[in-house]
Amino acid sequence: MNTFGKIFRVSLFGESHGEAVGVVIDGCPPGIQLSADDFLNDLSRRKSGRKGTTPRSEDDLPEILSGIYNGYTTGSPVTVISRNRNTNPSDYDKFSTVPRPGHADLTSRLKFMGYSDPRGSGHFSGRITWGLVAAGVIAKKILGGTVINASLKEAGGTADIEKAVEEAMKAGDSIGGIVECIIENPPLAAGEPFFYSAESAISQAVFSIPAIKAIEFGAGFRAASMRGSEHNDPFTDTKGTTLTNNAGGINGGITNGNPVVFRVAVKPTSSVGVEQTTIDFSTGKAVKLKAEGRHDACIALRMPVIVEAAAAVALADLLLIDRGISGKQRS
Amino acid sequence: MNTFGKIFRVSLFGESHGEAVGVVIDGCPPGIQLSADDFLNDLSRRKSGRKGTTPRSEDDLPEILSGIYNGYTTGSPVTVISRNRNTNPSDYDKFSTVPRPGHADLTSRLKFMGYSDPRGSGHFSGRITWGLVAAGVIAKKILGGTVINASLKEAGGTADIEKAVEEAMKAGDSIGGIVECIIENPPLAAGEPFFYSAESAISQAVFSIPAIKAIEFGAGFRAASMRGSEHNDPFTDTKGTTLTNNAGGINGGITNGNPVVFRVAVKPTSSVGVEQTTIDFSTGKAVKLKAEGRHDACIALRMPVIVEAAAAVALADLLLIDRGISGKQRS
Amino acid sequence: MNTFGKIFRVSLFGESHGEAVGVVIDGCPPGIQLSADDFLNDLSRRKSGRKGTTPRSEDDLPEILSGIYNGYTTGSPVTVISRNRNTNPSDYDKFSTVPRPGHADLTSRLKFMGYSDPRGSGHFSGRITWGLVAAGVIAKKILGGTVINASLKEAGGTADIEKAVEEAMKAGDSIGGIVECIIENPPLAAGEPFFYSAESAISQAVFSIPAIKAIEFGAGFRAASMRGSEHNDPFTDTKGTTLTNNAGGINGGITNGNPVVFRVAVKPTSSVGVEQTTIDFSTGKAVKLKAEGRHDACIALRMPVIVEAAAAVALADLLLIDRGISGKQRS
Amino acid sequence: MNTFGKIFRVSLFGESHGEAVGVVIDGCPPGIQLSADDFLNDLSRRKSGRKGTTPRSEDDLPEILSGIYNGYTTGSPVTVISRNRNTNPSDYDKFSTVPRPGHADLTSRLKFMGYSDPRGSGHFSGRITWGLVAAGVIAKKILGGTVINASLKEAGGTADIEKAVEEAMKAGDSIGGIVECIIENPPLAAGEPFFYSAESAISQAVFSIPAIKAIEFGAGFRAASMRGSEHNDPFTDTKGTTLTNNAGGINGGITNGNPVVFRVAVKPTSSVGVEQTTIDFSTGKAVKLKAEGRHDACIALRMPVIVEAAAAVALADLLLIDRGISGKQRS
Repeated sequence: MNTFGKIFRVSLFGESHGEAVGVVIDGCPPGIQLSADDFLNDLSRRKSGRKGTTPRSEDDLPEILSGIYNGYTTGSPVTVISRNRNTNPSDYDKFSTVPRPGHADLTSRLKFMGYSDPRGSGHFSGRITWGLVAAGVIAKKILGGTVINASLKEAGGTADIEKAVEEAMKAGDSIGGIVECIIENPPLAAGEPFFYSAESAISQAVFSIPAIKAIEFGAGFRAASMRGSEHNDPFTDTKGTTLTNNAGGINGGITNGNPVVFRVAVKPTSSVGVEQTTIDFSTGKAVKLKAEGRHDACIALRMPVIVEAAAAVALADLLLIDRGISGKQRS
Repeated sequence: MNTFGKIFRVSLFGESHGEAVGVVIDGCPPGIQLSADDFLNDLSRRKSGRKGTTPRSEDDLPEILSGIYNGYTTGSPVTVISRNRNTNPSDYDKFSTVPRPGHADLTSRLKFMGYSDPRGSGHFSGRITWGLVAAGVIAKKILGGTVINASLKEAGGTADIEKAVEEAMKAGDSIGGIVECIIENPPLAAGEPFFYSAESAISQAVFSIPAIKAIEFGAGFRAASMRGSEHNDPFTDTKGTTLTNNAGGINGGITNGNPVVFRVAVKPTSSVGVEQTTIDFSTGKAVKLKAEGRHDACIALRMPVIVEAAAAVALADLLLIDRGISGKQRS
Repeated sequence: MNTFGKIFRVSLFGESHGEAVGVVIDGCPPGIQLSADDFLNDLSRRKSGRKGTTPRSEDDLPEILSGIYNGYTTGSPVTVISRNRNTNPSDYDKFSTVPRPGHADLTSRLKFMGYSDPRGSGHFSGRITWGLVAAGVIAKKILGGTVINASLKEAGGTADIEKAVEEAMKAGDSIGGIVECIIENPPLAAGEPFFYSAESAISQAVFSIPAIKAIEFGAGFRAASMRGSEHNDPFTDTKGTTLTNNAGGINGGITNGNPVVFRVAVKPTSSVGVEQTTIDFSTGKAVKLKAEGRHDACIALRMPVIVEAAAAVALADLLLIDRGISGKQRS
Repeated sequence: MNTFGKIFRVSLFGESHGEAVGVVIDGCPPGIQLSADDFLNDLSRRKSGRKGTTPRSEDDLPEILSGIYNGYTTGSPVTVISRNRNTNPSDYDKFSTVPRPGHADLTSRLKFMGYSDPRGSGHFSGRITWGLVAAGVIAKKILGGTVINASLKEAGGTADIEKAVEEAMKAGDSIGGIVECIIENPPLAAGEPFFYSAESAISQAVFSIPAIKAIEFGAGFRAASMRGSEHNDPFTDTKGTTLTNNAGGINGGITNGNPVVFRVAVKPTSSVGVEQTTIDFSTGKAVKLKAEGRHDACIALRMPVIVEAAAAVALADLLLIDRGISGKQRS
């Protein structure tokens, strides 16, 4: 079930310490100009957590295996992979009996009956989002004039993000954050009323990003305490522009042409240097646990480009479905 | 795209003032005891917004068209419909040129190129959730020992819901609310890590309910301001019970056996008796608009059973997928 | 899994002696002119096995439950049903212990663990193709200028079909037949190379018609004994017209603009008045069995319109997918 | 649309002269013992066209990128690729204006608007079936006790296959053939009555193998000239064994436990050394064309293992669906 989409279909694969991570993008329109370089900016943002910097190492360089010819997509599946450098990490076996709180150690073991790759969280690692970001690069090209911008609005409960991160690091602890995504000039009339509404599609994609635990569109949770007369967005012209945007650009599950706006909550990194109590499942006894080595104090820093990718992939699929059914190329 | 699910598949159809609304449930296991009566309680909750009351009229009575024989599901698709009583309502044509703020009038017209049924919002009406609730009844039976309970926690920003509704009615206005859903004894190890995580599946289903604009699992948005050491849920026994439940019962997209907990925000009803300014799309001029007739002051009152149904349908599908792939009947 | 298609999606439901049979068509483009009358010709062909005659009774009259407004499809799911008249037939229970050879009595019982509706073969009845024919009517409209014609070429091994049927009836036996389907002016470039090639899609749809056991495209089985120089179809103009059509209008899984041609084999009706030996599963003893009442001596007579419907539904889905991905309206 | 399956999902990618060909297998049960060596026998059969020989070069050696850990499948997607050796072949550009008869040159150019990779037929090459064979190896393991055997029964119209191939080679021509596939001890009760019957699923998979133009189950086309009393397979014991197997092991779209038997027609290789007439699409004039270099005189020789793979993949998906819905592990 590691595939998103009905027409524009994105399949992720890989483990953090296996041979490679990657993505197959099927249903990709032919004729999109694309080279390995096109992936670098977004992959670099994902890696560094900062916009516009270059990758520190070559770990993340994409290798295109299929679907591109003479600099353009061919219409057949595009496959892009990234080799893993460190495939022989320190021992993760202990987590099979002493699962780390907040991690997927226990659930992955249960689900896959003890066979899941435990090294660096395996297929449950944030590393797997590499392929999602790569797919997002292509999706953004399909969306053409649409501009998707996600940014970290707060971390650890404050807008002074730098300070919050510093404090968390000092404490050997981690913090979460809130990422806001604004999509200007989205595809018009995208979204299928039931089960594949714009909110359904975006949230389905977004909730496969590890660590995301909440999403709200437009006024979101604030809508619950608003009056209808206040929440309804009045139209101001015949293009459908609205005075306010409490709907987050979506009515009845369908984009209305105003910016699509949503926010997601990123939980704090599960690995912390602070000592925690858990259970040794082999003995049933309480034990102390403490993450060793370097860990992100705030994974939310890396999230904006991943959230953008999830949104792009969802909207690209909705666009292709809509133009298939309606036969219209809407602008 | 009005279908949810990969194995247990729910297809909704109908318009609020057409002949009927209904649902086809495919991939429904054979041998589930089921009669028309089994639908009444949940359909009644949906109708009245109150648990345990009976339907005031027979509008909502379910008619089973297929898939049941001798009181049991047969394994072939179950179809249940409800005839609409009022199929010739007052004129809705004006909304095609003067779209109501907050409604899908404009987006449905754009998407369906003027052909959508405008009567009572047509296929975009809350009436279509009738079929979802019917599917939820079957899904709950499939889930067996799982107990799903959703309730309205606040409306219009307060826990004194009755008072909030009264005030909104007096003002001819409407209010939103927050519904919390707690799923005790959920299927274990349900959820596929990428793109069909437990959060992905539940949110995809939930966001097709008209008026829902936000969802959060476990600590949700609060997680963004928590520290990792605080957010991580320590295990307390070898069954995987955790001391806290900030994860909302889901790690790595997979249910961990603790209660699945989520909250959704319901926006205020779009139809309000308060005068609103909008645009007449045929003239480009600003006009005043005011909803006539009776309207729900707080649709959130009806939401708990619909949210339960969405969650049940998502979990039933995850359960069937997991047992297909793993070959295990987990308890 | 009673659904066909990825964008234009057809879900069949019903049992032969249940309340009704029917179909939900999702992903149906808005703006297609459609009324109940439009179904009559094809439904009548299905019923009588003869083109252009009217239904003898009103059993087959379609009732539209959703998706049509003011004579046009709305873009939301179209649901069409037909009530069953005879819902209390003679006893079919004996077939649960003495399964009829050639029927699905045993497999349906095994698969659905004894819960399947046995009356008149239930969901395994040819009656379920009623909904497929209804969907085919809509699919044909979507295909526009495409002309689909299926006809019975031989029955019981001869082209003198009338005589063959007569002889079979006299013998209380049944015969099979071969139906050929020719699709003039098919959608161009329809078909996805792997797993949803034009042949894959058509055969997937066709093989859900009960009694069909073989399909061949173009030269089909004859191709196995041809030389390449003979089988290859030389182009004769720059529109891609070919001198011969051994490929059946499909190269690399994609329609090439020449007529799509395929043939299917229909097995003889399983119910025969001739005495047959089978096993009583409750005793393990051999028993004699003989079908009572009236039975079709040659169901192949009714097949052409059903085969057309299967082909239409498959091509409509391929058309919508292609135009979604390519963004082109090909003519 | 390069994906097969609903639960056990196989996605093919690659071009014959691109970087690599490969496959992602999602929904693969955890705990299946698997190493690169396990692929060699079937990949060798595909390459050489003969059972049991070893690959002549290392071109075909599989590289596992994901989904395996400590010699077992992990439950996350399995990705296997094969690097292409010859990625800079002689000029194929001419085929864009002078499409080869029988090939996908014209249709691929039309469909992908001139962007498809023309080198060695690109994504339309038989080389892409490498990934299908790899998936088949895993599918066969999932099917456990099921034994799938396909063999070439005739080529060029005769059972003396060796002689037929020799003659075709001498003539610089090519021949087709008939492959029969017998599946002993198939999964019981596999197949969903409508649209994913055993015949539907198998034929959908089989018809994505380039060059296959026909399929028949059991008596197949012969059924069309049989009487019902002759075609019906009488049961001989309470396990459901039948005296004859005209149904090819499938009743009502569901496997009945008897061997599943089907035959496919393979058309002759399109590339022939014989001079052929076609059209130069840039000038509209007739031109002569003749394939240069070495070409398979009879691709049907390589087909058995590919057909087995298609059948295995289809049955594995049906098995997982059935056990998901029924909750039964049937033996």
